[in-house]
Amino acid sequence: MFTGAPPGFRIDASMRTLFIFIWSLGCLAGCADPAATAVDTTAEKAAIRALLLAQQADWNAGRIEHFMEGYIKADTLRFVGGSGEILGWDNTLQRYLHAYPDRAAMGTLTFDLRDIDLLGPAHAVVFGAYSLARVSDNPTGLFTLVLVKTEGDWRIVHDHTTADQP
Amino acid sequence: MFTGAPPGFRIDASMRTLFIFIWSLGCLAGCADPAATAVDTTAEKAAIRALLLAQQADWNAGRIEHFMEGYIKADTLRFVGGSGEILGWDNTLQRYLHAYPDRAAMGTLTFDLRDIDLLGPAHAVVFGAYSLARVSDNPTGLFTLVLVKTEGDWRIVHDHTTADQP
Repeated sequence: MFTGAPPGFRIDASMRTLFIFIWSLGCLAGCADPAATAVDTTAEKAAIRALLLAQQADWNAGRIEHFMEGYIKADTLRFVGGSGEILGWDNTLQRYLHAYPDRAAMGTLTFDLRDIDLLGPAHAVVFGAYSLARVSDNPTGLFTLVLVKTEGDWRIVHDHTTADQP
Repeated sequence: MFTGAPPGFRIDASMRTLFIFIWSLGCLAGCADPAATAVDTTAEKAAIRALLLAQQADWNAGRIEHFMEGYIKADTLRFVGGSGEILGWDNTLQRYLHAYPDRAAMGTLTFDLRDIDLLGPAHAVVFGAYSLARVSDNPTGLFTLVLVKTEGDWRIVHDHTTADQP
């Protein structure tokens, strides 16, 4: 701890310059904000892409509960679809289970991730298209996702999906 | 500029402590990231709300070009609607002029801004609903907007709008 200047200590011009120099070094060190400089854009985009491709793989393995891991497990999750707004992870899961009751209804999902934009170290927006290959039809559509990095993992907090008009 | 210690200058333990103290003060000053601390969440949300209410007023005055001022004037603007993806400010304007050719088609617009989330000093996501009161019908829908603050002004860079199913 700083206990004061030594007895008889005299601050002259050179000393003052020295203090300002040391202060400036400290200031520069402080300016190197770890949150701002630590963002590896390529790595974060790859992590987001991996999350969504894991969702695609889970869907195509018929595992809707695993697919749902891509969404934040919170009441604040918002899913916006053709039938309006759904709030919360549990309600979103129920909506998926209701709309896709079996493997035939789930079909084979393909994501086309057209744009992954990082909006800082912990937020991202993804724009993409989906296609569902099924025996009877091939529904397609567009989605906008907002993702948040929480406890080291990216999770979807807002999903706005629009089915293409047939 | 620092030109070196004065001649005969001796650094003892107290002096070293003093240097470390001054360096730490500088470090703390540097840590106070102006971008992070300068965000007035209430003011930014109010600015975003004002932008969207100005859009609503321009729409209801039949001024589609003024309404379009809410969008970033760039080729990167993305509008996602029932007819798919539209890229660029000019194309988005053309889409509005085509879909709403006269005052009767434009009707009276009301925005219900349900959620304005700041994702840092220069990014925001808005979720809301729109309602169009017209003589013959009353179309409604939901929208997700991504906004960026550029040159001091908030502008929509991504608009995903879904009309409610009648």
